[in-house]
Amino acid sequence: MQPNPVPGTAGLEAAITTDALVIGAGPVGLFQVFQLGLLNIQAHVVDALPFPGGQCTQLYGDKPIYDIPAIRVCTAAELAQQLHTQAAVFQPHYHWADSVQHITPQPDACLKVQTRNGLCFLARTVFITAGAGAFVPRTLKLDGLAAFEGTQVFYQSAPEAAPTGPVLVIGGELDAVQRAVDLARAGHTGITLSHRRDQFNAPVELLAEMRALVAAGKLALCIGLPTELRIHNQVLSALGFASADGGTQWVDASCVEAYLGVSPTLSPLTQWGIDLDRKAVRIDTASGASSLPGVFAAGDVASYPGKKKLIVCGFHEACMAAYGAQAYLWPEQNFPLQYTSSSTQLQQLLGVGLAREDPL
Amino acid sequence: MQPNPVPGTAGLEAAITTDALVIGAGPVGLFQVFQLGLLNIQAHVVDALPFPGGQCTQLYGDKPIYDIPAIRVCTAAELAQQLHTQAAVFQPHYHWADSVQHITPQPDACLKVQTRNGLCFLARTVFITAGAGAFVPRTLKLDGLAAFEGTQVFYQSAPEAAPTGPVLVIGGELDAVQRAVDLARAGHTGITLSHRRDQFNAPVELLAEMRALVAAGKLALCIGLPTELRIHNQVLSALGFASADGGTQWVDASCVEAYLGVSPTLSPLTQWGIDLDRKAVRIDTASGASSLPGVFAAGDVASYPGKKKLIVCGFHEACMAAYGAQAYLWPEQNFPLQYTSSSTQLQQLLGVGLAREDPL
Repeated sequence: MQPNPVPGTAGLEAAITTDALVIGAGPVGLFQVFQLGLLNIQAHVVDALPFPGGQCTQLYGDKPIYDIPAIRVCTAAELAQQLHTQAAVFQPHYHWADSVQHITPQPDACLKVQTRNGLCFLARTVFITAGAGAFVPRTLKLDGLAAFEGTQVFYQSAPEAAPTGPVLVIGGELDAVQRAVDLARAGHTGITLSHRRDQFNAPVELLAEMRALVAAGKLALCIGLPTELRIHNQVLSALGFASADGGTQWVDASCVEAYLGVSPTLSPLTQWGIDLDRKAVRIDTASGASSLPGVFAAGDVASYPGKKKLIVCGFHEACMAAYGAQAYLWPEQNFPLQYTSSSTQLQQLLGVGLAREDPL
Repeated sequence: MQPNPVPGTAGLEAAITTDALVIGAGPVGLFQVFQLGLLNIQAHVVDALPFPGGQCTQLYGDKPIYDIPAIRVCTAAELAQQLHTQAAVFQPHYHWADSVQHITPQPDACLKVQTRNGLCFLARTVFITAGAGAFVPRTLKLDGLAAFEGTQVFYQSAPEAAPTGPVLVIGGELDAVQRAVDLARAGHTGITLSHRRDQFNAPVELLAEMRALVAAGKLALCIGLPTELRIHNQVLSALGFASADGGTQWVDASCVEAYLGVSPTLSPLTQWGIDLDRKAVRIDTASGASSLPGVFAAGDVASYPGKKKLIVCGFHEACMAAYGAQAYLWPEQNFPLQYTSSSTQLQQLLGVGLAREDPL
């Protein structure tokens, strides 16, 4: 025990130490991992989604992209998959469905990085490749409801235990309809599906089953938006919906599961003491460095004069950030630029290390 | 006829007018064409080589490249081919085996661009994507020989007409051996193959045939370097080689064909009045613009703080230069950034114009 603990070092015993932490596993984050790997820097990666690709996968995975160099066309999901595969050779450590909340510089020039799920990293460099932000579930805007999050209210997920009381499922997309049908089909009583309008987006067979369960009285339907909540002995017991006659229709719920989709947020970023241009990280184009030593940025989240939010630009920025970090980490060393087509060292790193006799 | 012609406008009647001229068809030049196409700017392209790909194709076409984003591995030649195909949709006009000699700003803000082969362009913008320079044939360093270039002395090529006198073929690679064998096989007399040492790099069958022709007296072999030339009535008649006994061995030649390979040169670039960093073009990272209005640069030939000579960086620089040129050409207009995955306009330009109802 230190008599005078250094401020901000509490809980560091369990911290994961790493040379590089990448925030965001979209296309640019994945290429960041690869570029760092080429410089022999292994990375940990945190992403709010449970899979690689960021908004490429989340928002437009099936859309074709035509402006990636030397790839005439690919879908956004294919692009993410290719980049994920390319980076895999460097064995990055991914931490999915988590997001960085705090970055705190330490006295030894390391950065303490804390996540929503309670992970703590001590990182020598951090790469913000967060795109438009961490995708977090959209929440219900209802006074007092936040207090029940994680105990009685869940977003984009169900509680681990099977329900023992009435469940209110909110949402108009496949995940909400599927969840309500699954619960009703399993024989749970007191299940209600709610959406702001009587129109659901799901396969016709599922919609037919949902309507049949409603007709059979095994599933209730509530069309409208919740406006009130009822709390009994500090326990959430019901949500109130504005009814057509001006009154309130109450739906019993010991558990509320809302599937309202996800949207990106950069809110935590604004608390890290980094020089920003609106919500983008100002970087030095020569090194990808932000104003906070050891913190770099690339991709849509980065800002500099002339910045274009294009994937091809993000790839370059990730490259510059990797070299910037190399110079930051080992300022005394001189690293000659190496090419994957000719460098035995790079080819060994890549696991294709057939030493060739013929230099370029 | 103008009474007082504007200086530097001579010969412009036959000039090719274009919004964009790209100098160099290596990977970055090809992607430059593509990026310009996405901004609806059609390009003419001049390259010193007779094929696309630049040094990627010329120097290491069969080498694997591992650091192109989302392409785990490809050869340099495959990369060039893919980029060439990707750019083809915008129907660029290629001018192969030619190189830009002069760029002269005109009073109307156009740039007069003149090539070695006598082409003249009036270009509103010029993109220097020349890599390490234009690949030009290596020449024999022999006083007085240059005067015969194109009439009696040829580099990396044969004269169009069949030879009528003795031919000296110089070089140790396939092209030299093949040419000498072809001439001797066709029954031409007075054919000599010369190389600095008695070691040739060609397929064994061809080498065997060459040696057989030498043994049969149908092809002469001269090992050594030419040190003198003999001129008779202003006509080149022989080259002299230093012989082992200190004398000179003379080889008759009414035609000298030297196949010494190619090497890149940026010499013309230094005459264009552009601000350089050694032999690289200083650019503004925000726009890709050089110090000469209307002239942009990208790829290995471009220089700025932190510059890394990597293909992935060149792709980004080509992108920045395209947008820089768009703003330069139409300064009054505001062009919102469009995405190939969602823009109907871009998809129509790309010829994939299936208008989609669902925006991103």
